[in-house]
Amino acid sequence: MDYQLTVPVILRRAESIYGDKEITSRLPDKSIHKYTYSNFAIRTKKLAVALTALGVCPGDRVATLCSNHFQHLEAYFAIPCIGAIIHPLNTRFSPKELSYIISHAEDKVLIIDEELLHLYEMFKSDVNLKEVIVIQQFQARLPEGLLNYEEVISSGDEKQFCPFEGSEDTAAFMCYTSGTTGKSKGILYSHRSIVLHALSTLLTSSGFNITEKDIVLTIVPMFHASAWGLPYSCTLVGAAQVFPGSSMDAESLLDLLESEKVTITGGVPTVLMNILHKLDQDPDKYKLNLRTIVVGGSALPRFMLKKFSEKYGIELLNTWGMTELSPLGTTSVLSSKLKNASQEQTYDQLIKQGYPVPFLEIRGRNEQGIIPWDGVTVGELEVRGPCVAASYYKDENSKEMFTPDGWLKTGDIVCIYQDGCIEIKDRSKDVIKSGGEWISSVALENTLMEHPSILEAAVIAIPHEKWIERPLAYIVVKNGTDVSIEELKEFLAEKFPKFWIPEKFAFINEIPKTSVGKFLKLKLREKFESDNRNTTEH
Amino acid sequence: MDYQLTVPVILRRAESIYGDKEITSRLPDKSIHKYTYSNFAIRTKKLAVALTALGVCPGDRVATLCSNHFQHLEAYFAIPCIGAIIHPLNTRFSPKELSYIISHAEDKVLIIDEELLHLYEMFKSDVNLKEVIVIQQFQARLPEGLLNYEEVISSGDEKQFCPFEGSEDTAAFMCYTSGTTGKSKGILYSHRSIVLHALSTLLTSSGFNITEKDIVLTIVPMFHASAWGLPYSCTLVGAAQVFPGSSMDAESLLDLLESEKVTITGGVPTVLMNILHKLDQDPDKYKLNLRTIVVGGSALPRFMLKKFSEKYGIELLNTWGMTELSPLGTTSVLSSKLKNASQEQTYDQLIKQGYPVPFLEIRGRNEQGIIPWDGVTVGELEVRGPCVAASYYKDENSKEMFTPDGWLKTGDIVCIYQDGCIEIKDRSKDVIKSGGEWISSVALENTLMEHPSILEAAVIAIPHEKWIERPLAYIVVKNGTDVSIEELKEFLAEKFPKFWIPEKFAFINEIPKTSVGKFLKLKLREKFESDNRNTTEH
Repeated sequence: MDYQLTVPVILRRAESIYGDKEITSRLPDKSIHKYTYSNFAIRTKKLAVALTALGVCPGDRVATLCSNHFQHLEAYFAIPCIGAIIHPLNTRFSPKELSYIISHAEDKVLIIDEELLHLYEMFKSDVNLKEVIVIQQFQARLPEGLLNYEEVISSGDEKQFCPFEGSEDTAAFMCYTSGTTGKSKGILYSHRSIVLHALSTLLTSSGFNITEKDIVLTIVPMFHASAWGLPYSCTLVGAAQVFPGSSMDAESLLDLLESEKVTITGGVPTVLMNILHKLDQDPDKYKLNLRTIVVGGSALPRFMLKKFSEKYGIELLNTWGMTELSPLGTTSVLSSKLKNASQEQTYDQLIKQGYPVPFLEIRGRNEQGIIPWDGVTVGELEVRGPCVAASYYKDENSKEMFTPDGWLKTGDIVCIYQDGCIEIKDRSKDVIKSGGEWISSVALENTLMEHPSILEAAVIAIPHEKWIERPLAYIVVKNGTDVSIEELKEFLAEKFPKFWIPEKFAFINEIPKTSVGKFLKLKLREKFESDNRNTTEH
Repeated sequence: MDYQLTVPVILRRAESIYGDKEITSRLPDKSIHKYTYSNFAIRTKKLAVALTALGVCPGDRVATLCSNHFQHLEAYFAIPCIGAIIHPLNTRFSPKELSYIISHAEDKVLIIDEELLHLYEMFKSDVNLKEVIVIQQFQARLPEGLLNYEEVISSGDEKQFCPFEGSEDTAAFMCYTSGTTGKSKGILYSHRSIVLHALSTLLTSSGFNITEKDIVLTIVPMFHASAWGLPYSCTLVGAAQVFPGSSMDAESLLDLLESEKVTITGGVPTVLMNILHKLDQDPDKYKLNLRTIVVGGSALPRFMLKKFSEKYGIELLNTWGMTELSPLGTTSVLSSKLKNASQEQTYDQLIKQGYPVPFLEIRGRNEQGIIPWDGVTVGELEVRGPCVAASYYKDENSKEMFTPDGWLKTGDIVCIYQDGCIEIKDRSKDVIKSGGEWISSVALENTLMEHPSILEAAVIAIPHEKWIERPLAYIVVKNGTDVSIEELKEFLAEKFPKFWIPEKFAFINEIPKTSVGKFLKLKLREKFESDNRNTTEH
């Protein structure tokens, strides 16, 4: 049967089978908004009809500038349901970046949180939007010319809803990578990619094992790689969904995890670190029902895994992905051969990035060609699969990201074990080549962050006359602690070959980070160059 | 990325990630054969190459006449991997039916178990097969002109393997419905349908929740609706697979369940009934590791569910499907709203057929049109979805099975509850209309079979002068027991309206069954007509 895998199919299923299930959102005033999937479906259809009436046509881009809440979920469905493309914008981008992206994507309409209108004010003169729809959050009078989201919804008649019935290969979602280097690049997800990604992330064997019985708090921002697909996968199986709004501090998140009896959540290590610190301040304060936290975005520190598991009984599921993959790539599930492994061996396995999700194919390549799967040889990871983007939006340099036979070059340096488990060793841009030998900045950083006095550590390559490159470690010490360079060198010498140990350490107040909490080494390299230039000049 | 969902992708994943996992088969001499997914993949590639050398081209049909074993699994993958179509034949069909089906499907090559060669001898002169390949099981000399499966495998060089890279919409699998009425009809599964079906059956939320850690015994025959897709879904996630060969008696199955530490199995109620009887004979004999039995093919009796759960700690997962659906349609998973339900309420829910799997859309229709989802109104179930067949192979009457807007008419009479849960009330062919009122033969049968003296019961409609139709119950009593018609009428009167109670009961030795264990009411109707004619004539 010719049956296309599209976003309207997910909506129809949720509406007909899970109508009574709840969607919960925290509003800016900290109060809680609840409604059912039935309400959600009706409002989504009204929004779809209203957007069509406002002139949104199939293929048009509708941008959102919103935190995680039910209206954002409505947009996630309403826009693809009329064949248009939802384009969530990163709320942490600068007005300049936002205006560049809106113009590059040719967004026609913007849906924006009232609490983010100050951002709009700063870029509005640089963009050409047909309509701006404001999700009113404070009952203030809206500026002239802007539409009220609730009035837009009211204007739509859900009986007029006529869901998209075109090809599943039609674009439905657009995302610009925040990118640790260079300009943001646009990536399109098709309806098919969204549906297949949702199915494969739901599997127990390789994914999050979400069912209708789960209550899922989506911490990872909906502007970031479609919040790892959670809004779609949760809706597909009718899981209760909880959205934190803009209250992203650890205390607010913990309150919500407790009060809503959340069973699954997911976030980047920096956010989880804050939650862990908060828990540790008063370990008996929160009665959590949490069984799994999905971790992604950057490397999972071993101690975090161990502590969540042993002290709080919460399993962490380590993942690796990229916006280009829709975004999930690998998950660190335990295979049956480890059933008799020790706890420590288990942790060793779980902090690896794990196995590819179904239909993602992987290989590694170095100067000698395709690397063997021996768990030792390192090379750049290349992938292909039905959820992998084939190009960047309106980008002439797209082709450079792909191999001649059509695999995406991920930019991640990995080794691959015999059974297909991958371990990320570095970003290709972060590799340090010292005297022809490779040094892993990630390994050095992770070990340094296990030192009791260190809060954050980032290692970059700096030029060296004899060895070409040598590592430099930037260190942030914890409040009230102190540590000497000699002590750090000794600490590293226990684990690494002598030539890996950095000669230079620099103590700073904070490691610069991207909008999603990843270390922004580009800024550290700029800082080094600028510091060095200053030193030379003066 | 244009990435087609095809069977070779499943093979590639299994080979690269799950190479060490085991596949176990029982041979005709009851001994056990084991090898790994790595061995399986190499042999499958060799077979694919050898079949190409024998002249099998893309689109050709290659039939199998085999029980469940590793060679059949190799054929399941090798044939679609060269773009050809595997066509498993029902080993319980008569030689006449087999020759009709082989000729209708235009099968080019046959792969057959040596222990089934007697069947081949009976139809060989009626079919036109280019090659016959025999899986040698007894080391006897093969008849002239037949190929030896192991020699065929040896002739293939796996390095020459060139997997199918065409469209996912290409046919990969063919199945003739055993059909309780009329001639067998051919159904084609595409690569896409196989892959999507595998994904959706694997989900915890709506499926079998199979992971790499599971050990799965495939009892349901591989010639029957692709054994519910288990050979593909298990291979996709690398579950250990166990095949019973032709030893399908309860004792052999229980031995295998115990010795292989099987965690999941599946079968039709008649097979499970045999297993339950065997267990009951000596409840402490078998130390089972079984957590779930998937049940399908016909209605699940409530007492069976209750006994497996309460006495043996094994959960039954009730399902409904059709060969036309690839075949899984619905699964009776418990929804979160039943978390505080009593044990009896839970059983009441679990014996319903449950919720549609993802992307299967359902609706019911009676004379008044589409039925409401009220759990009361009954109508014929209609379905559509990506795993639903769009026509029957070379069948001019195909169109009658579909509605004008493209939904498949299932022939099952259901009510649909408000949340989309379905309950099968009858087959449309089995409905009894007495004085304009509807009587469920299935409900009468299930209740009769709860009577302690009754082994099997089947109810058919017989003509009646006044009421047009009335029910007639065929009864098989258990060995050593006895029951009167009056007693049965009283037993039914406790549960049903007076007009539902049959006036006529007939005691017979066995209910005739289809090759997959379903009651064959067609034969009962023929029996009634013949008995009645005889009565009239003499």
